[in-house]
Amino acid sequence: MNYRFGINMKIVWCITGAGHLLRESFQVMKRLKEEIEDLKVTTLVSRAGEEVVKMYGLFGELYNISNGNYYEELILEREHPYSSPITGRLSLGKYDYLICSPATGNTVAKVVNGIADSLVTNAIAQAGKGFVKSLIVPVDYKAGIVTTKLPYAIDKKKCKLCLKCINVCPNGAIVKRDNFVEILLSKCLGCGNCKKVCPYNAIIEGKEIKMRVRKIDAENTRKLMELEDVIVLKHPYEILEFFNIR
Amino acid sequence: MNYRFGINMKIVWCITGAGHLLRESFQVMKRLKEEIEDLKVTTLVSRAGEEVVKMYGLFGELYNISNGNYYEELILEREHPYSSPITGRLSLGKYDYLICSPATGNTVAKVVNGIADSLVTNAIAQAGKGFVKSLIVPVDYKAGIVTTKLPYAIDKKKCKLCLKCINVCPNGAIVKRDNFVEILLSKCLGCGNCKKVCPYNAIIEGKEIKMRVRKIDAENTRKLMELEDVIVLKHPYEILEFFNIR
Repeated sequence: MNYRFGINMKIVWCITGAGHLLRESFQVMKRLKEEIEDLKVTTLVSRAGEEVVKMYGLFGELYNISNGNYYEELILEREHPYSSPITGRLSLGKYDYLICSPATGNTVAKVVNGIADSLVTNAIAQAGKGFVKSLIVPVDYKAGIVTTKLPYAIDKKKCKLCLKCINVCPNGAIVKRDNFVEILLSKCLGCGNCKKVCPYNAIIEGKEIKMRVRKIDAENTRKLMELEDVIVLKHPYEILEFFNIR
Repeated sequence: MNYRFGINMKIVWCITGAGHLLRESFQVMKRLKEEIEDLKVTTLVSRAGEEVVKMYGLFGELYNISNGNYYEELILEREHPYSSPITGRLSLGKYDYLICSPATGNTVAKVVNGIADSLVTNAIAQAGKGFVKSLIVPVDYKAGIVTTKLPYAIDKKKCKLCLKCINVCPNGAIVKRDNFVEILLSKCLGCGNCKKVCPYNAIIEGKEIKMRVRKIDAENTRKLMELEDVIVLKHPYEILEFFNIR
């Protein structure tokens, strides 16, 4: 075990609605739990974050990070009152760190304008007020083009409309259109059953696409760096470096 | 048929909560459907947009624009998950254009600050990230005074309290107060039954009022022009010009 910042450490992990850097964020939080003895993680998931975590098939893994015990609660914004007790703990400085990874352009835009009207933006604001250091990984770090990976998608050229995937989908997320089959991302749980059963290798996971990082989002990331007790990181892996974990 | 921009064109039309330029926006979208062969329009209606469209009696016309087929869905923010699949299609660049008309001061204010916490502001953000061009018609183009038309209103001077209008209203949107009768705009469906039955010509449709375009809203419209792939238009009719439709 190697820990640099005291024992019985308590961290809030905030997840917002971005697929970009999401898997890497999960990997990092898992490593922190492994490496830092008695680390307690309270996880806050925004509404959009919940949808995206499900799309990427990672929802189940949340319980490995936050098992529900005291200071290890899993808080879904959808289920929680607006200024839930968790943010009170932050104002009282009862956590050692707040980590927000991935942080969407929307979350960063609100934070740098002092807006705190959602579970995560309010948590970040209270952390700032309660002298709790925030490590924030914005998905829009620098203006330009980024490559990101999609959850499951069907390659129409390879698909033979055998419909085997539809029968194995546990959440009815695959639908037959006129002449093709579509995965409804808002219902997909990312279980991968469809990919396993497809005889034609037509179901792709992690297809890469290019996306623009807009100037406004990059400009907001720059403003984020000026907030008290906020450390802006380029990538979730830099969180491990921060905690001296190789 | 005259179309300038390829065939099988797919457009997202976003409606937000403004009565100003709303009828003209509906006229334009109807013309685009008539003039552009195989045009598919997915319509996104914000919560406030839904209320205002109903007030102006235009809700039924939405189905002429988006009949529910694939890529012709009518998405009401009230009924839809936060990062609904539609915004995913925009990040993947699967639409040719996004049109937001009318765009309220609130929508423009959020967009220019990078805030994307609603169906429409998220759609505009994903369009920018997915290299989809946006044509935006802000109701607050230039600081000063604009004239706009109201939906139905009762002229108290002419009204004789005969209450005939109350009996013909299909949605209970007209109420008797102590000494006058009032149309509740939030319930009015704009059907016009009341106007037809009123013996005293006391019900007016499209009463003109003057409104101020505030400096902050005009300033946000100016900032809108600086966003990548965003074209700001003064009036919905300029959308027809953009598509070379006389």
